Amino acid sequence: MAEHDAVEVILAKRDGGELSDSQIDWVISAYTQGVVAEEQMSALNMAILLNGMTRREIARWTAAMIASGERMSFSSLDRPTADKHSTGGVGDKITLPLAPLVAACGVAVPQLSGRGLGHTGGTLDKLESIPGWRASLSNEEMMAQLGSVGAVICAAGDGLAPADKKLYALRDVTGTVEAIPLIASSIMSKKIAEGTGALVLDVKVGAGAFMKTLASAQELARTMVDLGTDAGVNTVALVTDMATPLGLTAGNAIEVAESVEVLAGGGPADVVELTVALAREMLAAAGVDADPADVLASGKAMDTWRAMISAQGGDPSASLPVARETHVVNAPSSGVLTRLDAMAVGLAAWRLGAGRERKEDQVQAGAGVTWHARPGDSVSAGAPLFTLHTDTPERFDRALAALEGGYEIADGAAYEATPLILDRIS
Amino acid sequence: MAEHDAVEVILAKRDGGELSDSQIDWVISAYTQGVVAEEQMSALNMAILLNGMTRREIARWTAAMIASGERMSFSSLDRPTADKHSTGGVGDKITLPLAPLVAACGVAVPQLSGRGLGHTGGTLDKLESIPGWRASLSNEEMMAQLGSVGAVICAAGDGLAPADKKLYALRDVTGTVEAIPLIASSIMSKKIAEGTGALVLDVKVGAGAFMKTLASAQELARTMVDLGTDAGVNTVALVTDMATPLGLTAGNAIEVAESVEVLAGGGPADVVELTVALAREMLAAAGVDADPADVLASGKAMDTWRAMISAQGGDPSASLPVARETHVVNAPSSGVLTRLDAMAVGLAAWRLGAGRERKEDQVQAGAGVTWHARPGDSVSAGAPLFTLHTDTPERFDRALAALEGGYEIADGAAYEATPLILDRIS
Repeated sequence: MAEHDAVEVILAKRDGGELSDSQIDWVISAYTQGVVAEEQMSALNMAILLNGMTRREIARWTAAMIASGERMSFSSLDRPTADKHSTGGVGDKITLPLAPLVAACGVAVPQLSGRGLGHTGGTLDKLESIPGWRASLSNEEMMAQLGSVGAVICAAGDGLAPADKKLYALRDVTGTVEAIPLIASSIMSKKIAEGTGALVLDVKVGAGAFMKTLASAQELARTMVDLGTDAGVNTVALVTDMATPLGLTAGNAIEVAESVEVLAGGGPADVVELTVALAREMLAAAGVDADPADVLASGKAMDTWRAMISAQGGDPSASLPVARETHVVNAPSSGVLTRLDAMAVGLAAWRLGAGRERKEDQVQAGAGVTWHARPGDSVSAGAPLFTLHTDTPERFDRALAALEGGYEIADGAAYEATPLILDRIS
Repeated sequence: MAEHDAVEVILAKRDGGELSDSQIDWVISAYTQGVVAEEQMSALNMAILLNGMTRREIARWTAAMIASGERMSFSSLDRPTADKHSTGGVGDKITLPLAPLVAACGVAVPQLSGRGLGHTGGTLDKLESIPGWRASLSNEEMMAQLGSVGAVICAAGDGLAPADKKLYALRDVTGTVEAIPLIASSIMSKKIAEGTGALVLDVKVGAGAFMKTLASAQELARTMVDLGTDAGVNTVALVTDMATPLGLTAGNAIEVAESVEVLAGGGPADVVELTVALAREMLAAAGVDADPADVLASGKAMDTWRAMISAQGGDPSASLPVARETHVVNAPSSGVLTRLDAMAVGLAAWRLGAGRERKEDQVQAGAGVTWHARPGDSVSAGAPLFTLHTDTPERFDRALAALEGGYEIADGAAYEATPLILDRIS
């Protein structure tokens, strides 16, 4: 590998230039090995955030992160594979019903997930509220479960894209999270290294998402679709609304319960709509002809869910944990709920103990927020609007403060429903 | 002090905002104490470099760096004080004749200087080639010498602007040196904390300087003059040429010898011109009416030089060290020397051992480059053009490579002399 110098690479990007393949390969490898210092990578990240990267640079940066670790392969399976990634939203439990549904349609789903940090929940945190369920599997266990059950939701091993792990932790403390090249390469390096054949991205936009505008969400979606396509992964993205939280729950156990309702043929309409839409995309990308709505109605997705939970030590029939204390917020007036702010709800759930402030914090399985109406629904003065759940009642005050101003009840005449799926990029 | 958060401050500057006084005070103090991490300050520096700072922000940033350490005061002296700072150039030995000259005119000169890093030499490195001379003085020794001799050139103590010391080392390895707000606040925090009454800045522009364009040098000069003025220091700046190196020598002992020639009434015309021009500015800024050209001719500046060197343990009559080996480059053709590139000469002197690559390196007292013609002078084919000096002859090859293309001999008709002093900003 050609020898470079950290300052040389920083100056090139700082002064608006394009980094060479050799500079990118060197800086990622040297950073992973500790030769490029944290403060040097931090300056480079800020220069990338402010000056951007070309499509070629982003592709090479992603490839260099993949090359920093191991690559998995599912070519020994007798089925095609498809994975889904969401950029993170409030009440976004879609992975839970989606993975068993797609597996029940004949496509293997290797879903490597993460834990939550901040106001959006983590898929692993949610599943860990099921008694006995464990997130860590060896690569061999994962392959075996994909063969037998067809779906796995588990923690990504330390071997995948270690450069990304280091970079992600650095970006978190240096104000360099919101850079599209860095977000896209972080997500795609893990998904490409994981070895999935097809990938469907759910790029969230709105108050409760990283991307606040449709244009920035579209740019992120386009960047990731290009990266996947260039790497030989059949990649499609849906851009979906995250101004309003998904479903009627944000938390851990309460989101599992809502997901099980969907698998049982019920559940909130928006959760069902998005689950089926993403399933259709995953099946099409994997080249499998099946109707996920029919499979969901048949109960086969529920069977796969139960098998998937059992295979990882969980008891799918066990009662889910319930928070020790609840607090109900009643509607202050009658009318139509015209706005429910995803960030306010996510922040409230987080403050109630559903999320963590620092990486080493524990989450509360029962904590979270349930809302009893969605935008467009009528509400009556005095009827329950929110139920707050926590084991630690001293948290109610700050959660209530987060909800303040986070919803609006008005004359329904002015209310206009907005679509859940805003764009499709392939 | 108000509590802030490093990421909050980084995001404010990253997104093009203006930092509040309270944010600036907090971030400098927290960084000095190690609460704000190096990688966080590095991201902030890059955001400042790319997004800039207002005059108010730069003034507050400078004040916060001053507040991180001690402040000196010369109010007990019976004379006014004036100091000079150069942004660094090749062959720039001006401090050596200037400090005793101004002191001989009745103004005390407390000149806190640094060592060289990179292609520009350091004043302390040059003086340390004088047998016995020492750079480190206590504050008490410095005050005593200012009273008795009137001039001191010594190392800045660790107590002045410690935040700047940390920041400077960080900027050096993170590609954030060339930010005008950071350069200006770094220089001015030390000069204001030092307590000088008047300050004359020599802002270099051209190939051998940090500032490559007149506009950027003028902006830096204006920023520093504003900072000094706002802090009650009578501040003036000259913007001077550094496309061509100063005088006829770049090195350590060879520059001391050239400076002594100037004090003896000889020396290269450009060194004399700049020394006298800066002396006039210092005297005017300190409110003292004297003609430095007369004082230089009288020999009083030489007397002060000898007293100043003796007071710091040096022997002003001792022979200066001479390099063990020399190599002469002869003119390849006859004509007029139309160009002599300061960066090429500085790099050659550095590679011969006059400068250091890492902070812990030793410099060679005798190493450097002598040139035997200045732009505008006639040269004859085969006559000596450069003499290279070093103790370590294996260095000649890389020094010669640096000089290649660094000069031009042509028909003199097209040659146009450019002025040494390009602008004055007050």
